[in-house]
Amino acid sequence: MSSAADAPRLVSAPGPLPASLQFNEEGRLRHLLSIEGLSRELITEILDTAESFASMNAQSVKKVPLLRGKTVVNLFFEASTRTRTTFELAAKRLSADVLNINISASATVKGESLLDTLRNLEAMYVDMFVVRHEASGAAHFIARHVAPHVSVLNAGDGRHAHPTQALLDMFTIRRHKGDFGALRVAIVGDILHSRVARSQIHALNILNTGEIRVIAPQSLLPAHVESLGVHVYNDIRAGLRDVDVVIMLRLQRERMEAGLLPSEHEFFQLYGLTQERLALAKPKCLVMHPGPANRGVEIDSRVADGPQSVILEQVTYGIAVRMAVMSMIMGGSVNP
Amino acid sequence: MSSAADAPRLVSAPGPLPASLQFNEEGRLRHLLSIEGLSRELITEILDTAESFASMNAQSVKKVPLLRGKTVVNLFFEASTRTRTTFELAAKRLSADVLNINISASATVKGESLLDTLRNLEAMYVDMFVVRHEASGAAHFIARHVAPHVSVLNAGDGRHAHPTQALLDMFTIRRHKGDFGALRVAIVGDILHSRVARSQIHALNILNTGEIRVIAPQSLLPAHVESLGVHVYNDIRAGLRDVDVVIMLRLQRERMEAGLLPSEHEFFQLYGLTQERLALAKPKCLVMHPGPANRGVEIDSRVADGPQSVILEQVTYGIAVRMAVMSMIMGGSVNP
Amino acid sequence: MSSAADAPRLVSAPGPLPASLQFNEEGRLRHLLSIEGLSRELITEILDTAESFASMNAQSVKKVPLLRGKTVVNLFFEASTRTRTTFELAAKRLSADVLNINISASATVKGESLLDTLRNLEAMYVDMFVVRHEASGAAHFIARHVAPHVSVLNAGDGRHAHPTQALLDMFTIRRHKGDFGALRVAIVGDILHSRVARSQIHALNILNTGEIRVIAPQSLLPAHVESLGVHVYNDIRAGLRDVDVVIMLRLQRERMEAGLLPSEHEFFQLYGLTQERLALAKPKCLVMHPGPANRGVEIDSRVADGPQSVILEQVTYGIAVRMAVMSMIMGGSVNP
Repeated sequence: MSSAADAPRLVSAPGPLPASLQFNEEGRLRHLLSIEGLSRELITEILDTAESFASMNAQSVKKVPLLRGKTVVNLFFEASTRTRTTFELAAKRLSADVLNINISASATVKGESLLDTLRNLEAMYVDMFVVRHEASGAAHFIARHVAPHVSVLNAGDGRHAHPTQALLDMFTIRRHKGDFGALRVAIVGDILHSRVARSQIHALNILNTGEIRVIAPQSLLPAHVESLGVHVYNDIRAGLRDVDVVIMLRLQRERMEAGLLPSEHEFFQLYGLTQERLALAKPKCLVMHPGPANRGVEIDSRVADGPQSVILEQVTYGIAVRMAVMSMIMGGSVNP
Repeated sequence: MSSAADAPRLVSAPGPLPASLQFNEEGRLRHLLSIEGLSRELITEILDTAESFASMNAQSVKKVPLLRGKTVVNLFFEASTRTRTTFELAAKRLSADVLNINISASATVKGESLLDTLRNLEAMYVDMFVVRHEASGAAHFIARHVAPHVSVLNAGDGRHAHPTQALLDMFTIRRHKGDFGALRVAIVGDILHSRVARSQIHALNILNTGEIRVIAPQSLLPAHVESLGVHVYNDIRAGLRDVDVVIMLRLQRERMEAGLLPSEHEFFQLYGLTQERLALAKPKCLVMHPGPANRGVEIDSRVADGPQSVILEQVTYGIAVRMAVMSMIMGGSVNP
Repeated sequence: MSSAADAPRLVSAPGPLPASLQFNEEGRLRHLLSIEGLSRELITEILDTAESFASMNAQSVKKVPLLRGKTVVNLFFEASTRTRTTFELAAKRLSADVLNINISASATVKGESLLDTLRNLEAMYVDMFVVRHEASGAAHFIARHVAPHVSVLNAGDGRHAHPTQALLDMFTIRRHKGDFGALRVAIVGDILHSRVARSQIHALNILNTGEIRVIAPQSLLPAHVESLGVHVYNDIRAGLRDVDVVIMLRLQRERMEAGLLPSEHEFFQLYGLTQERLALAKPKCLVMHPGPANRGVEIDSRVADGPQSVILEQVTYGIAVRMAVMSMIMGGSVNP
């Protein structure tokens, strides 16, 4: 497998990824590719729709016929049992049929052959591609070339975007904290390589979050990160002070091997979330993580499993949020 | 993995593969193993049934309860995500449950152990085996040994047969051209090793096609191919003249490595379908290909993607035709 | 893959595996981990429930909506297409959604990371884990740590237990022989390493079987095996005399490589079930095997395929018994 850096750049990210591609002529959501370009109203509608699914998931019969007869294809160019499972469950609980197709990136290095694969699946009258790919812009590329009857849901493309992750994070924050205007939210770790962080920052901005902070060593921050509307902290103790929510990012171990990072131990010393550091935040500060957490690297187990952690709630809400997005894109009515 | 040539010859093909095996005592279709032995009336009934599924597939709810409670087992001894997907979708849209079982040929080299696998699956009261195998005669072998409650659908066996492919090709031709009696159809490429070509020739003959041509170098034609009722052309320009339909075969690259064929480039020079050559056919000549096409080897991209190409329609109709066959074999009623 | 001997001992078996873990506060079955601890009444209720599913499986529509909206996760740490298939079919015929997750043991050697995987799946509101693991006690370990809304079904853990196999064996015997009190049952082969034998012995004891015999060389018997309530025979001819049921165990070829056993040929000479030896048993003695049988090693093909063999019936009843257990654990009502 080639690394993300070697991966074919289908489109250079993130400049030429038009947010308008996400809407149909009537202005309704057709694809979900990135948080950029979504309005505050639309994000609120997604979160409201997810509310009803969230309560349904805890019931005995966790299934509605909203997408009966629809076919969802999990098109994963990058293996991820965990992410694939959440989309598969969301689709099945909407009564859709699910096809899981794993395609090694090497088999589709040539854009042409990827397009042939898409054309063939489209011809089978499938309704949605859930796409994960190691190349930034892959979901946009597919959305740009897809047939009119097919929608694309970005399940993570390179360093670019992971919009359903950001939406489930917003859902989790809203459930616990209500209005975003009064909140201080800190994102800690490898901001530079994180599609999760990028999508979270966009979502927090759109929802008019009081203050957004990023906490990282300078080497793990994008150039001109301030232009995204965030405050930068290189020191975790200063950055955590008085925040309402702290979101830890997963440290990709490959970065360390590439020399971009010190050792795991040293990273934990400098940026790991410990009980002592968490005490600097507000008393009821939420602890979040997109998972799977590297315990003892970016987060101490006592914090990950502690009373302020909502990490597993994020997983639960992830199903509901994905059901909401799928039903809004594919379904006529969205009242479950 | 052993090559097709090394594969255990379960049955020597095609002599001892009795077409009568396909029918039950009342004369109804029980297995679909080959086109040979099907009547014109039966093929027409299959195509008529597929018509109703074809219109259904474009609808929002693409699902009927015809095979609810039935279990279809995709028994693939030869990997093929693409073919497996079409059968899986067809079965799911009929509301059947689907089990995907990939068996490496090496694990079942001994006929005995293959039979044990079959016996076990039968004992679980499954209803249909969709079988793909690299050995000619494998589907017949299984049909001969299968329990009375189980049907076998041949999804491609060695060089022998691929009946659903031929049926979907007939469906596509009929949709565009109507009556077969007035048509000239040319099949181009590696006829010798092609189960697709063999099944197409049988189907075209049964449907009383006006003229069937095969176009290939002598080294890629079976001995006595004329006895199948086809006209032989070694020159593609002569062969394409005034045809209504041209079917390109996929060139198996393994053949080239085995020295049976010149280089890809040379093959394209001699037998590749270009716009210039297509112009020799009738003005509205259909361009067909069972997929996946080797662009620039047997077909030029401008032709594959051009206005006369129905390659993607073939994929679409493949679902409908497979639904028709499955429902006729397993279902009581076939009116969707 | 590490061998069972090297596998992490999550819990030392079988001492500290409390049977009480299997019941909820109201005394109803919550997990099925082992046969130990089940009452005669409960086993009888399971077998009675399986009766109704057994007749249903032979019908045209083999599906009931009992577990509609429930999610069953096949969590297989040890590959087994065969076993996984029976649980998948059972769950689908109850209308549950099924997720198949294969986890290599190496990826979860650390208990912590296994727990993180469980926590994540639980957070997705799944309802049941069907667990197969090479370590004895794995299913108990998971049951002990699982969320209140999730049930665990042991599909085989190390050398410890395989309770659904024992239940389907009891179902098969009861169908043919009725009351257990009058029966002599012999289990032949590698008792020492067999989770199947261990579960069978417990079930036969609970059902008050007249006499239980084990037939094996001393090297393949657990120490103090008599304390389990069985009669020991080292000679197969003596052991088979006048039995009503003979259960052959599958010989694990790995044992031979480890030097614990003589050659396959020699084992067959000493303990293989032949027609001549079977003639020593009662005239209508049932021949059983959990499958897949090593023909010519522990059993002669003429016996495996002979008139007294119920090996394939065991497979059939396996679906019904698993449906019974799943519906009793997860479903409100169990009347199909």
